[in-house]
Amino acid sequence: MIVMKTDATQEQIDQVIKEVKKYRLRVDVSKGRYKTVIGLIGDERKIPFAHFAALPGVKEAFGIEIRYKLISREYSKFSGETMERRIVKVGNIEIGGDEPIIIAGPCAVESKEQLFRIAEEVKKAGAHILRGGIFKPRSSVYSFQGLGGEGWEEAVGASQWLQKAGKMFDMPVVTEIRGEAQVDLVAEYADILQIGARNMYNQDLLTKVAKKKKPVLFKRHFGASIEEFLSFAEYIAAEGNKDIILCERGIIPIGKGKEYTRYTLDLAAVPAIQKETYLPIIVDPSHAMGRRDLIFNMSCAAIAAGASGLMVEVHYNPAEALVDGQQMITPDELKDVIDVCRRINKMTMPGRNKS
Amino acid sequence: MIVMKTDATQEQIDQVIKEVKKYRLRVDVSKGRYKTVIGLIGDERKIPFAHFAALPGVKEAFGIEIRYKLISREYSKFSGETMERRIVKVGNIEIGGDEPIIIAGPCAVESKEQLFRIAEEVKKAGAHILRGGIFKPRSSVYSFQGLGGEGWEEAVGASQWLQKAGKMFDMPVVTEIRGEAQVDLVAEYADILQIGARNMYNQDLLTKVAKKKKPVLFKRHFGASIEEFLSFAEYIAAEGNKDIILCERGIIPIGKGKEYTRYTLDLAAVPAIQKETYLPIIVDPSHAMGRRDLIFNMSCAAIAAGASGLMVEVHYNPAEALVDGQQMITPDELKDVIDVCRRINKMTMPGRNKS
Amino acid sequence: MIVMKTDATQEQIDQVIKEVKKYRLRVDVSKGRYKTVIGLIGDERKIPFAHFAALPGVKEAFGIEIRYKLISREYSKFSGETMERRIVKVGNIEIGGDEPIIIAGPCAVESKEQLFRIAEEVKKAGAHILRGGIFKPRSSVYSFQGLGGEGWEEAVGASQWLQKAGKMFDMPVVTEIRGEAQVDLVAEYADILQIGARNMYNQDLLTKVAKKKKPVLFKRHFGASIEEFLSFAEYIAAEGNKDIILCERGIIPIGKGKEYTRYTLDLAAVPAIQKETYLPIIVDPSHAMGRRDLIFNMSCAAIAAGASGLMVEVHYNPAEALVDGQQMITPDELKDVIDVCRRINKMTMPGRNKS
Amino acid sequence: MIVMKTDATQEQIDQVIKEVKKYRLRVDVSKGRYKTVIGLIGDERKIPFAHFAALPGVKEAFGIEIRYKLISREYSKFSGETMERRIVKVGNIEIGGDEPIIIAGPCAVESKEQLFRIAEEVKKAGAHILRGGIFKPRSSVYSFQGLGGEGWEEAVGASQWLQKAGKMFDMPVVTEIRGEAQVDLVAEYADILQIGARNMYNQDLLTKVAKKKKPVLFKRHFGASIEEFLSFAEYIAAEGNKDIILCERGIIPIGKGKEYTRYTLDLAAVPAIQKETYLPIIVDPSHAMGRRDLIFNMSCAAIAAGASGLMVEVHYNPAEALVDGQQMITPDELKDVIDVCRRINKMTMPGRNKS
Repeated sequence: MIVMKTDATQEQIDQVIKEVKKYRLRVDVSKGRYKTVIGLIGDERKIPFAHFAALPGVKEAFGIEIRYKLISREYSKFSGETMERRIVKVGNIEIGGDEPIIIAGPCAVESKEQLFRIAEEVKKAGAHILRGGIFKPRSSVYSFQGLGGEGWEEAVGASQWLQKAGKMFDMPVVTEIRGEAQVDLVAEYADILQIGARNMYNQDLLTKVAKKKKPVLFKRHFGASIEEFLSFAEYIAAEGNKDIILCERGIIPIGKGKEYTRYTLDLAAVPAIQKETYLPIIVDPSHAMGRRDLIFNMSCAAIAAGASGLMVEVHYNPAEALVDGQQMITPDELKDVIDVCRRINKMTMPGRNKS
Repeated sequence: MIVMKTDATQEQIDQVIKEVKKYRLRVDVSKGRYKTVIGLIGDERKIPFAHFAALPGVKEAFGIEIRYKLISREYSKFSGETMERRIVKVGNIEIGGDEPIIIAGPCAVESKEQLFRIAEEVKKAGAHILRGGIFKPRSSVYSFQGLGGEGWEEAVGASQWLQKAGKMFDMPVVTEIRGEAQVDLVAEYADILQIGARNMYNQDLLTKVAKKKKPVLFKRHFGASIEEFLSFAEYIAAEGNKDIILCERGIIPIGKGKEYTRYTLDLAAVPAIQKETYLPIIVDPSHAMGRRDLIFNMSCAAIAAGASGLMVEVHYNPAEALVDGQQMITPDELKDVIDVCRRINKMTMPGRNKS
Repeated sequence: MIVMKTDATQEQIDQVIKEVKKYRLRVDVSKGRYKTVIGLIGDERKIPFAHFAALPGVKEAFGIEIRYKLISREYSKFSGETMERRIVKVGNIEIGGDEPIIIAGPCAVESKEQLFRIAEEVKKAGAHILRGGIFKPRSSVYSFQGLGGEGWEEAVGASQWLQKAGKMFDMPVVTEIRGEAQVDLVAEYADILQIGARNMYNQDLLTKVAKKKKPVLFKRHFGASIEEFLSFAEYIAAEGNKDIILCERGIIPIGKGKEYTRYTLDLAAVPAIQKETYLPIIVDPSHAMGRRDLIFNMSCAAIAAGASGLMVEVHYNPAEALVDGQQMITPDELKDVIDVCRRINKMTMPGRNKS
Repeated sequence: MIVMKTDATQEQIDQVIKEVKKYRLRVDVSKGRYKTVIGLIGDERKIPFAHFAALPGVKEAFGIEIRYKLISREYSKFSGETMERRIVKVGNIEIGGDEPIIIAGPCAVESKEQLFRIAEEVKKAGAHILRGGIFKPRSSVYSFQGLGGEGWEEAVGASQWLQKAGKMFDMPVVTEIRGEAQVDLVAEYADILQIGARNMYNQDLLTKVAKKKKPVLFKRHFGASIEEFLSFAEYIAAEGNKDIILCERGIIPIGKGKEYTRYTLDLAAVPAIQKETYLPIIVDPSHAMGRRDLIFNMSCAAIAAGASGLMVEVHYNPAEALVDGQQMITPDELKDVIDVCRRINKMTMPGRNKS
């Protein structure tokens, strides 16, 4: 990291950047009110920091060990500002602000009718953002892979429905990009680009998605530590895209015997991550639980833990859903979740203690 | 399980019990309003159920696969009653009732002064039950093992302080029994007998503690599944002691790299367990987190998840504690936790949806 | 699955395939000595098996629950053959045959000199296949990402070196494909296409790589169960490519405290997987251990467990390696590993008991 | 740790020990050829090392961070000796020596006939030590708990059979102590006292068993890290009993879906632990696998990994065993295991490289 002097000129800054690029590293330039900080992206071991410290306009130059410096609270202090929190704006929705944001919709888009009906009902229940899977990652090649698995035409069609449903019911839309070949398509129609848990370690996909400069909903892999999760979020930030919404969705359960929940929801990751980064983090209780009768309580718990929102799967008739029917709740149940979560949020959201 | 006819006589019931004992099994007799149910404890494979079904007064006789039938909701239905929840009473405190119960105190009893001062302060903050470790289970023989590790005299002394502190500030007291040799001593002075996470699988200790007929605070091992946790709670119930308070305290974290919390708090275990058993379950955020700055949020989340209470480590000056100082909160912070948790509980406690 | 009658005509077979495709499923046609079996790839729930059973030439038609039927031993029986083992041939090397196959080379290709020198030395030590990473998956954007991360030109250059080194020292070569954009390049120069552990769940990449019809070295994700591992290998087989070499490389360690090995090498997965599938499985002790002093013993143990080979990182001077130097062994140590492993293999390889 | 001068007198040594005890710590006196080292057992933070360094005859006095110093290779160097390995002698059997030691027998002692017949057959197959469970730790109160669960008389009877079978077939015997109340009984009849995996964290039991001064077979808990395992072995050593045989028996499997082995056998723990301690370590493949068809390969792999022996469950007719029949092998299969393991051991045992 290279901290420029308060009175460093743009020319001096440009000179430093030029020098850095000679070493084949990229830069993240962060202009604070008081000083400009140049973050180095790439293998810092190549860099002769003493040499950089001696360049005109440079105040300090030093290596940083942390693997997620661009998104860390710590790093934001160097520019003379403390980024308490980053609010990701999508349309008129603010993720990471004072209200818990509810992303809701079907697990998979199955038909235009299904999607529009659910969109209407979740909107009425109070949801802010519409979700719907087109390219479904599945553990078995023998399972329904979403309409995107039926053919390209179907994928385009489903994407258009999603966009239209969002417009009709005034909600931004989010859907998952499962592979690199889907990036352009999804980025054309969706407002938020989701990277699923199974792709958390897929750095090539992360980089390609990040470049679209749209907000990214980034889910934690079920085998990943918090440190790994943030280190891979850094791959997105390294492309200059810091509109990242983190999402905890459960980790591998341990212990012998019957499983009562599909994954172990690691709610302590929520406040723990908030101490590390200014990015907002939401929780997906649906995939974590895999059963609808725990969604109410775990949604409330997520908000109480400090989450900035929820991503919940909803269906007017869960029994007829092609994918994951057993974990969907109804629009009425969603309304109940939203009502209680709003009240809890007022008592527990980060910053509450300061007021 | 043997379900007696509604009009079965006591003589017939006694006859069945006598027969069961011939097979070296024990019984759990549960008299419901409508019928009497005789649960069999031990290896059911030995039992000729057809023979038992033919005995006078017997309505049905059959084997049950579930490993925790005595404490299961399912089993309680056979007696014609549905045990919605079991309220464990200690003094005038009801664990599992409508109010969240707060167990608070120092990790380890270090001196009379320390204990009494903390007891007074947690009482003021709103705690219901006083905790304080005398026999500390430790991962290293080189760590402070509690006053109980200093000698028997010290153990007796610390136990007496605990009892007195409880009486002086009108709180029942709970402390851990780490080994079989400590059962008599602790049972003499404590109101609730704690079995720690490391001893969850210690069936001999469970049996011995259960026989004291005092409420047992039973913590989940950090490597145990929910099924194992309940199966070992059954060892306590099998001694005729169903005053069991379950406690979730975190499981082994998975994933590579730095640990941000000491354990992974499995909050979904709370509502999942409540679907299985009528026993109350509380949460210990202190050991799970291992750091005080997450205690507020995770306490709120625990209650939102449906927990019947919390066990929290408190110290007037965490920095000077001999054990686990980094995870203790102050009495003032405890007060804040209790206030918010009470309000959340009203919105989320089990049964709320029915009203 | 649709089993044709022994005397079914090609016309009848084609008719069945045509019918299947109407349901948007794909087929895997397996012609055994005695009968032809048509495996269905895709969501079988759509298929009216009764209808298919009634078609001319069809003997049986039924759904199969197993998620990895194309690669299962069980499935191979339906065609009247038992596929004891599949030998994957690359040049004159047979993976899955009677000799343990050793894949060796540097973790990352760093320069032409480094690669050629190591290639020469591992060949002398007895290695069969040359490895060398060009696109390195890394947990941090701040780590060296392989020459492939320096630019496309460097990636092409390194690929060409690899191909040349393989030819010069008469060894087929293997390197990892980290993202979809690299498939064409790597498939042009490498003999075996590797899918790394972090990409095990990346079904789009699997499908794209499989289509190249070259042998695929498929590594288990560190958070994946055996069932998941095989279910994702099925994605490769579903493209008609059954030249799959499975590779165990360690799973997430559990338990608190210091880590003594980087991952937990799950050697029992080797014989357990061999009971399920006819595909060969090898072991990578280097990444699993993360330290060179355990490589000898764990290599021997892998072969004793029944592995068909090893993938080992080797460097003439481990201390100067840019990536993972601490886990590389020297060519001399490799020679020792190979000698002992060959002798153990004779005593323990699958099939030994039958002779 | 306090290192005495080479010419320190016994009087000076005694004086130091006396001083240490004032601080309520215990000592482990280790007299090497060249110097005497006094290890401190207990909370070292109390100790004023500067004061001790100034006592007559003291060369050095300092605290040690490692949690398992008494059993560490590192510690043994201070006395001027390097304890390459500790050979635990039981009768004329040497565990930790040049030959792999095979402990075999039934999971549970079920009858005198069953025990004697199996004892005879395992002896013929080449086993060195006889095992047989009397007090069985079980996950369910509804499972057979061993003859020890039938009553005290049965427990005594089974213990006597075990002792007699050992004498008749000239094998030392080992059986598990499950609770503190069983220590005296088992120590009277068994040659090696086993502490099971579920009791690894039971420090009170460890201490009580250690005091019997008989060799202890100490199994790793399925949720324990290597560091925890060794830290609890230290509780045994702290009682002056270093005749500890460590045993790896599998850790909790991770990953979703069907389980193919009951536990994950962590074979790399074998050489990793051997780098840390001079104590011998053996492997129990039976409990780890839970299925007999993997026992041959995993036994071979364990020895190849460097294990000093195996503990294997054997039954002449596995189908009729009351406990764990599915994981037992026959005496004939045992013979095959022993033959191959002996040959592998010659190639892979620690120290081989030096010769």
